[in-house]
Amino acid sequence: MVFCDGPKERGAAVDDKIYFDHSAATRLLPEALDAMLPYLRESFGNKQSLVYDLGREASEAVEKARRRVARLIGAEPDDIVFTSSGSESNNLAVKGIARARARVSMRVIVSAIEHHSVMHSARRLAEDGFEVVRLPVDGAGLVDPDDLSEALAEGAALVSIMHANAEVGTIEPVRELAGIARELGVPFHTDAVAAAGSIPVDVSDLGVDALSLAASQFHGPKGAAALYVGKGLRLTPLIDGGVQERGLRAGTENVPAIVGMGKAAQIAASGMVDRNRKLRALRDGLIAGVRERIERVVLTGHPMRRLPGHASFCIEFIEGEAMLLMLAMEGIAASSGSTCSSKALKASHVLTAMGVPPEIAQGSLVMSLGRDNTEKEVARVLDVLPRVVAGLREISPLYAKWRKEAV
Amino acid sequence: MVFCDGPKERGAAVDDKIYFDHSAATRLLPEALDAMLPYLRESFGNKQSLVYDLGREASEAVEKARRRVARLIGAEPDDIVFTSSGSESNNLAVKGIARARARVSMRVIVSAIEHHSVMHSARRLAEDGFEVVRLPVDGAGLVDPDDLSEALAEGAALVSIMHANAEVGTIEPVRELAGIARELGVPFHTDAVAAAGSIPVDVSDLGVDALSLAASQFHGPKGAAALYVGKGLRLTPLIDGGVQERGLRAGTENVPAIVGMGKAAQIAASGMVDRNRKLRALRDGLIAGVRERIERVVLTGHPMRRLPGHASFCIEFIEGEAMLLMLAMEGIAASSGSTCSSKALKASHVLTAMGVPPEIAQGSLVMSLGRDNTEKEVARVLDVLPRVVAGLREISPLYAKWRKEAV
Repeated sequence: MVFCDGPKERGAAVDDKIYFDHSAATRLLPEALDAMLPYLRESFGNKQSLVYDLGREASEAVEKARRRVARLIGAEPDDIVFTSSGSESNNLAVKGIARARARVSMRVIVSAIEHHSVMHSARRLAEDGFEVVRLPVDGAGLVDPDDLSEALAEGAALVSIMHANAEVGTIEPVRELAGIARELGVPFHTDAVAAAGSIPVDVSDLGVDALSLAASQFHGPKGAAALYVGKGLRLTPLIDGGVQERGLRAGTENVPAIVGMGKAAQIAASGMVDRNRKLRALRDGLIAGVRERIERVVLTGHPMRRLPGHASFCIEFIEGEAMLLMLAMEGIAASSGSTCSSKALKASHVLTAMGVPPEIAQGSLVMSLGRDNTEKEVARVLDVLPRVVAGLREISPLYAKWRKEAV
Repeated sequence: MVFCDGPKERGAAVDDKIYFDHSAATRLLPEALDAMLPYLRESFGNKQSLVYDLGREASEAVEKARRRVARLIGAEPDDIVFTSSGSESNNLAVKGIARARARVSMRVIVSAIEHHSVMHSARRLAEDGFEVVRLPVDGAGLVDPDDLSEALAEGAALVSIMHANAEVGTIEPVRELAGIARELGVPFHTDAVAAAGSIPVDVSDLGVDALSLAASQFHGPKGAAALYVGKGLRLTPLIDGGVQERGLRAGTENVPAIVGMGKAAQIAASGMVDRNRKLRALRDGLIAGVRERIERVVLTGHPMRRLPGHASFCIEFIEGEAMLLMLAMEGIAASSGSTCSSKALKASHVLTAMGVPPEIAQGSLVMSLGRDNTEKEVARVLDVLPRVVAGLREISPLYAKWRKEAV
């Protein structure tokens, strides 16, 4: 495939690279890498080896990172359990809480647009005999609190509803939803992987019992994530073994990655308001520009209650993957729905749950902007995208048919 | 505690540091860090984002690492599942295989000296209704193949017996044990975390169905480990979600750590014979010296069938933690049994299973040497250790009592 080596060889395109796929991965902040390097080099001790200084240095570094991560989400350091990924945090929360409470209730309630790591954890629980209730969402991706109240009438071991959806950007009314569960004494977990570090997330304010976050979503390293576990919440570990992380997550701590997560959390927390003001302006310009320049485009997700840097669309008559390839050839990185399932071409469960018909869902385009993106880049995408769409529509029989009928 | 800042201030002590705790953590090889750095800096893509080059670079790097890790253990790349730690690999193997085969048998067979991540995974299975059989070991820590044959008479979902024990250095007769399980069609998993990268480990030669290894044990980074999963072996994932790692382990791949593991595996595989000849000489000198200079010392583990750099003892009449502290003050890092449980002062389950009485087990000292250690360091430890032991025995009432009776 010529494309594979194309962009690198074309020189200018390399410098011109535009990265609009922050929901898949973010660039590690140089400050976070600098914080990690001593623990990748000389200070390689095992955090549990407290008797000598290499071990103690590792331990102190991890506890400092724990304080920083706690501060990002308004938690206490003791309530932070480090894991290796947002998916692991979600598995630990959903399976861990449900299994620890199986004697109370064998029902778990999730929304229909959860990340695969929540969805498939729930499916695993269903194999073990749990009943899984999937709450519907409206056309904008919002869960209706009344639906939760109704579902909770029969009790539950756990409610897990995400904070923000990475595919359509919608921010759920987590405070209200968590309040409903709390009143009934049912633990509430929220997958805040797409939200934490991007928008203000405060566990006390939200009133949640557990919350997942991942460093790689806020310019920290891959391999470091966390689960907030509120006081008194019991959960069954996923990884049993040593005494690490209060016995809730065994395994040698990934000290460098945890340190990098701490630094990234500290940086994410500062200047968030200004950063998001800028991102919202870029996003709104991008959304408006796309709608103006391309016909038959649907904005997916909520028009207002959405992540600051998140613009997602369905572009009719074309296929998302083809669009991504054409954009990549122009040096633009974007995505089409969830990264973890992008190999599969079937319609996203998120769009399906929002009532988007499959023939429209296939034209999904997600552009997630980050701290480094500029107005110039948005302008360039607004220049390139309509051309890409026009090119693909030219060879689309569906588009030809529609044009004919529209005339 | 004065000690906390002591060694750093004493200047000379810092340069003189001796690291004899390679079973807890190893220094990351500079070559491995160099291999990781591009993926910590510019090439931060998500491995699943194959349409643009950042994602493709990440994907290619992970697959290259997979080939290198596979080569280290004589496996095929397709059979390698990357995880975040040796503990996770062990949990995935033990719980994953047992749960996938629960309909065949609800029995699992382990040895009595397994790592906590295997032991506690088995305990978790016991909560789910499995019967757990713990095979005894002899005084040297060896499992008797006849015991396995006998235990297998009633069938099993899984046998999990470690390759080498990190606390006493003993290398189990894995090939023979695996052969017994294979004949009966019962999957055999081995925890080779302490062995892989240190001594030759070949999955075909051993005839195992699953094998755990961790990069941090062979000078690779923390946060990267793997489970070899032989063809046709079914197992239930621990972390459900996306399609990563053949659907056996969801979560964004920790690309930099995986790349570092690949590089470390490549380096570990080369020059292993020479390295181990050197390590065995150092180890044997250390063991002989300790036995010569200190009275009432027991070598724990097997005298010959042991890891090349591994020397472990029980030193009577004193307490291991105190000895470690005194050694640390002299700039010597060692350990006392398993790192993961070193906060707990109760006697090690490994020594207990080997029949070491608790009053002797408490004087456990583990010195695990690595590729950088020298004869000079062994000589220095042989100079310091007898003094440390003598000092501690001076204040030991048990020692005084023994001396009096011995006279």
